[in-house]
Amino acid sequence: MTPSYLNEFKPPQRILLGPGPSSVHPRVLQAMTQPILGHLDPQFFQVMDEVCEMLRQVYHTSNFMTVPLSSTGTGAMEAACANILERGDTAIVCRNGFFGVRLADIAQRCGAETFVVDSQWGKPVEPAALERELRKHAKVKMVGVVHGETSTGVLTPMPEIVELCHRYGALVVSDAVTTLGGHDVQMDQWDIDVCYSATQKCLGAPPGLAPISLGPRAVEVIKTRESEVQSFYFNLKGLESYWNQTRAYHHTTPISMTYALREALRMMMEEGIDNRIRRHARVAAALRAGIQAMGLQLLADPDYRLNPLTTVVIPQGIEDTAVRKRLMQDYNLEIGGGLGDLRGKVWRIGLMGESAREVNVFTLLSGLEQILPTLGYEVAYGSSLAAAQRALVEFEGRG
Amino acid sequence: MTPSYLNEFKPPQRILLGPGPSSVHPRVLQAMTQPILGHLDPQFFQVMDEVCEMLRQVYHTSNFMTVPLSSTGTGAMEAACANILERGDTAIVCRNGFFGVRLADIAQRCGAETFVVDSQWGKPVEPAALERELRKHAKVKMVGVVHGETSTGVLTPMPEIVELCHRYGALVVSDAVTTLGGHDVQMDQWDIDVCYSATQKCLGAPPGLAPISLGPRAVEVIKTRESEVQSFYFNLKGLESYWNQTRAYHHTTPISMTYALREALRMMMEEGIDNRIRRHARVAAALRAGIQAMGLQLLADPDYRLNPLTTVVIPQGIEDTAVRKRLMQDYNLEIGGGLGDLRGKVWRIGLMGESAREVNVFTLLSGLEQILPTLGYEVAYGSSLAAAQRALVEFEGRG
Repeated sequence: MTPSYLNEFKPPQRILLGPGPSSVHPRVLQAMTQPILGHLDPQFFQVMDEVCEMLRQVYHTSNFMTVPLSSTGTGAMEAACANILERGDTAIVCRNGFFGVRLADIAQRCGAETFVVDSQWGKPVEPAALERELRKHAKVKMVGVVHGETSTGVLTPMPEIVELCHRYGALVVSDAVTTLGGHDVQMDQWDIDVCYSATQKCLGAPPGLAPISLGPRAVEVIKTRESEVQSFYFNLKGLESYWNQTRAYHHTTPISMTYALREALRMMMEEGIDNRIRRHARVAAALRAGIQAMGLQLLADPDYRLNPLTTVVIPQGIEDTAVRKRLMQDYNLEIGGGLGDLRGKVWRIGLMGESAREVNVFTLLSGLEQILPTLGYEVAYGSSLAAAQRALVEFEGRG
Repeated sequence: MTPSYLNEFKPPQRILLGPGPSSVHPRVLQAMTQPILGHLDPQFFQVMDEVCEMLRQVYHTSNFMTVPLSSTGTGAMEAACANILERGDTAIVCRNGFFGVRLADIAQRCGAETFVVDSQWGKPVEPAALERELRKHAKVKMVGVVHGETSTGVLTPMPEIVELCHRYGALVVSDAVTTLGGHDVQMDQWDIDVCYSATQKCLGAPPGLAPISLGPRAVEVIKTRESEVQSFYFNLKGLESYWNQTRAYHHTTPISMTYALREALRMMMEEGIDNRIRRHARVAAALRAGIQAMGLQLLADPDYRLNPLTTVVIPQGIEDTAVRKRLMQDYNLEIGGGLGDLRGKVWRIGLMGESAREVNVFTLLSGLEQILPTLGYEVAYGSSLAAAQRALVEFEGRG
């Protein structure tokens, strides 16, 4: 028998409404068919400069070091911690979800004495609780905050947190994996020190690169640190010499992925960053209205809901994977399950980047309206679609 | 004025004869236009299994953990060291070029007391010298060896080195970035403990993934280590739970890059691994003959020459970049410059993967024959082409 790997690979066209990767526009995929350039080719240097320039716009920053790392978002989380922290430093992580847990784990692996401030999953960490922890330590080097918690669907308001941390002399590392391009991220105005993201969510490119931006305080801390960064691959001083005019070889950049990111960012420039963010807000409003019209509960505190990612509480008696499998088999549609403590308890519905389209909201709601009753959860047919439609009209009415 | 990033990106079609990335076949580029699947989609799990199965064939191994890491080769170098080494361990690195220097640097950053065995750049490290170093230490945890030194063009014969290291109870970490798919790599027969590579050289895919394979001794060392691996991103125990049947989320895999790697490996299966390796040997023989017919010297010891990468000593009076710029401008052809101590002293000519074609040898030799005389280095026109042609015929004659 011919082994399956010898066959041509023809994946189905899924509607990707999980926590990322999101669907990628054909223009972005097509960009990857451009011929490979060397990573030290002057024509590729121009691509690099263009990507950085567009990333600065999305981050709203003038930080020179605003570059895509050759990893996924988790790699960027590691890069942030490994470059800022030295052995024996003190770090605090606001832990209001799975990615907060991960951030604390990584800070610990970087040799920092790491303390956590917890909050109920579904809410942001309270600034007062963070301040109590900050007060306990003589010198906190870094506070890690997940701007958009993909595990819970919670958005943490950054300005107050940043102001608080700086008052205590701590740098702020912010995880914008799920927010960059889908929510407002004001790197400079909010005065964030390190902010990283990933390409496969609201930026609309395939997974594989992780944009990061470093503010002046972070650059200074990295320049003056005493010990070597424990990671060579993520050593940002080494990487800077490649991304600045020195163009010194550090490692071979993922060329095709960089083409894809350029095209995805170009599409965001064409759409307008504010329009892109508004699109995420609009479809999220429709989704929430539809979900609630079916009588389903949302996990996240209404005051702190993410637009790109909505967490839905799985109703009593309904089996998580039964629904997700049906959505995939019958509708070619992927939504995500819960992570960590929320496994089996929530669905995570992503409307990110190219996936953040009204048609996807209606397709999902229609699917759920058809599947849930067969599993014993009654739904009035069409009610969620009508509610979503009303939400769209209302959103436009709000201007 | 319209900023350049708003324009469509149309790179020239370069002939990539540097140290990698090599040119990528349109079939492989096209594979990246397939729609994105989620990293937990059963259809993607099949792609993962197929990629691993083909990688095992290329490595000649039955090691279960034979997977592509979500990084370039430098990341895999870091993964190897970070997982094997703990703080206070002793490591030895055979340092016969730039990547040996890097490997020692990384071992050090992982907290190991790191010792080096040097050799002249252009030769492999002598086993006797390595044994002298091994004897000095009570317990050496790991010996790092660069199988193919891309900076010098030297191939280190592995079996003797591995046998020696195991005699002293040390694990062998082998850098096959430039050799996998271009030279014979016998993971199991040679009994290598950790071997890593990268996609953008002889495997014929774009840069961005790094295949790694772990033998049973390495797996055992990783399972029983006392401290946490300092890297979360490269923590191979965490990654194993994603690549094995647990399918536990670790980080979002670069989906499109995995498609590309699958297609590149499929093309290697179609060609046959031995034929692929033979093709690299044949075009390398032609290149060397042509280069020497022009009176140019090769850096690497004739007994230890890499096929995928040939280092040419830049003749007295000829300026490195003048020649490389002319090749790029007039022939759209990229070759590499020297790294580290060899900067400005050698050219590095890669014939890897899709770039390892006879036509590229003739194009380069023709270009050099035309450029070098204009810079004062006399060449008898056609002599290098004839020599290359004879070498091809002789190679075939050898069977």
